[in-house]
Amino acid sequence: MQQRWKLTIEYDGRPFSGWQRQEAGIPSVQAAIEAAIQSFCQQDITIHVAGRTDAGVHARGQVAHFDLDYGNRALTGYDLTKALNAHLRETPVVILDAEAVGEDFHARFSAVNKLYIFRLLNRPAPPAFERGLVWHVRRLLDVDAMRAGAAHLLGHHDFTTFRDTDCQAKSPMRTLDRLEIIAKPCVAGSGQDLEFHVEGRSFLHHQVRNMVGTLAMVGDGKWTSDQVREALEARDRRAGGPTAPPDGLYLVRIDY
Amino acid sequence: MQQRWKLTIEYDGRPFSGWQRQEAGIPSVQAAIEAAIQSFCQQDITIHVAGRTDAGVHARGQVAHFDLDYGNRALTGYDLTKALNAHLRETPVVILDAEAVGEDFHARFSAVNKLYIFRLLNRPAPPAFERGLVWHVRRLLDVDAMRAGAAHLLGHHDFTTFRDTDCQAKSPMRTLDRLEIIAKPCVAGSGQDLEFHVEGRSFLHHQVRNMVGTLAMVGDGKWTSDQVREALEARDRRAGGPTAPPDGLYLVRIDY
Repeated sequence: MQQRWKLTIEYDGRPFSGWQRQEAGIPSVQAAIEAAIQSFCQQDITIHVAGRTDAGVHARGQVAHFDLDYGNRALTGYDLTKALNAHLRETPVVILDAEAVGEDFHARFSAVNKLYIFRLLNRPAPPAFERGLVWHVRRLLDVDAMRAGAAHLLGHHDFTTFRDTDCQAKSPMRTLDRLEIIAKPCVAGSGQDLEFHVEGRSFLHHQVRNMVGTLAMVGDGKWTSDQVREALEARDRRAGGPTAPPDGLYLVRIDY
Repeated sequence: MQQRWKLTIEYDGRPFSGWQRQEAGIPSVQAAIEAAIQSFCQQDITIHVAGRTDAGVHARGQVAHFDLDYGNRALTGYDLTKALNAHLRETPVVILDAEAVGEDFHARFSAVNKLYIFRLLNRPAPPAFERGLVWHVRRLLDVDAMRAGAAHLLGHHDFTTFRDTDCQAKSPMRTLDRLEIIAKPCVAGSGQDLEFHVEGRSFLHHQVRNMVGTLAMVGDGKWTSDQVREALEARDRRAGGPTAPPDGLYLVRIDY
């Protein structure tokens, strides 16, 4: 009997070329998990993901699904999680949860909301712990100015300015429900830890990184916050700011 | 002219045998920083630390001092920080701040308060990001029971039960000013992120790890919270719980 399984996944994106399986020899998160499933049940199974992440992008709560015919043997989510994690032991990929779901569940198409968090370490000194896990910006950014810039991006817009020129989505229209910037002073030394909390039903390719890169220009005083609105209205990628590096980006939660 | 410098330091303890310099070839945080100073000014200088950390223990805000005769050349804290970080680039050690201080400042003896944070990842799934950076405990711990146990440890006591048998301190008397447990649900999947915030003027060898290891016994239901008081009153290391691993321990802040 076939059963659909929903996986919730955490991974450190640093060693991977991204989520998507590539040719043999190129490390991807998808290939790592599919290899674990193959080791567990000796079946070649393709998994379907909610949000394909790029090279170096991380996940705290990625979601994927797959169908498994395990014969008449009983299989619980607890056992499946434990078995896959045993096979994933040598990789920075962890299954947080495996849940039996109905056939109408689809990791990508059933998603109604996604939360991305972008981490930015804003201090003169480089990170000892978070190399490749944050965007390190030395010059102190003006958080209030970035918040004013972010306000222009909320709502339903044509996000062509913040979309990679290679983006395959049919429409550049998206609804941005939240773009909140949380700032905390560093625990020691000068500087601040910034988190950009970004929510919406779906995003264009590089949209979060392009929005963060643009807001950093505002925080650095090179742009006014009103220029973010002008860039959005230009509907032209060349009017936007630079793409922030993948290091700081985490897919944190997907709601269904 | 000789100047005393106060360094604030962040380091990932995983690759080190601890703070203290050992024989050649054994990696220590002290040796890494002294080598950076040597590269910067061609002088063999010994640095003095506030709290020697054990192998695998981390720091977010360690403090050390040293004396440097830099001739008649001007040297700012900004320049010293930048130069040392350039020499430390290949190590997970970062100077957060360098400050010129008076000759009466001593990293260890002038300290009036220390904050340690012990991080515990309490969920079935192993960590993808924090291997060696948290203590991973699979079974769900009862935080309220641990808080009741922790309350017995606050104040001025003979901490022999929580002191390593090799501890060199003359007196086992210490004052514990704070032992707060902060619990947050994991962002995805089941489980909780725990932080033990521990403050006092000074601590015995392994005191924080022995207290956390004992409280975990309470959280796991193997001890009652009253047994923590009984263990403390026994003044015998054999009456205490196990030593928590170094992975979760961070020296976060030192007040002067």
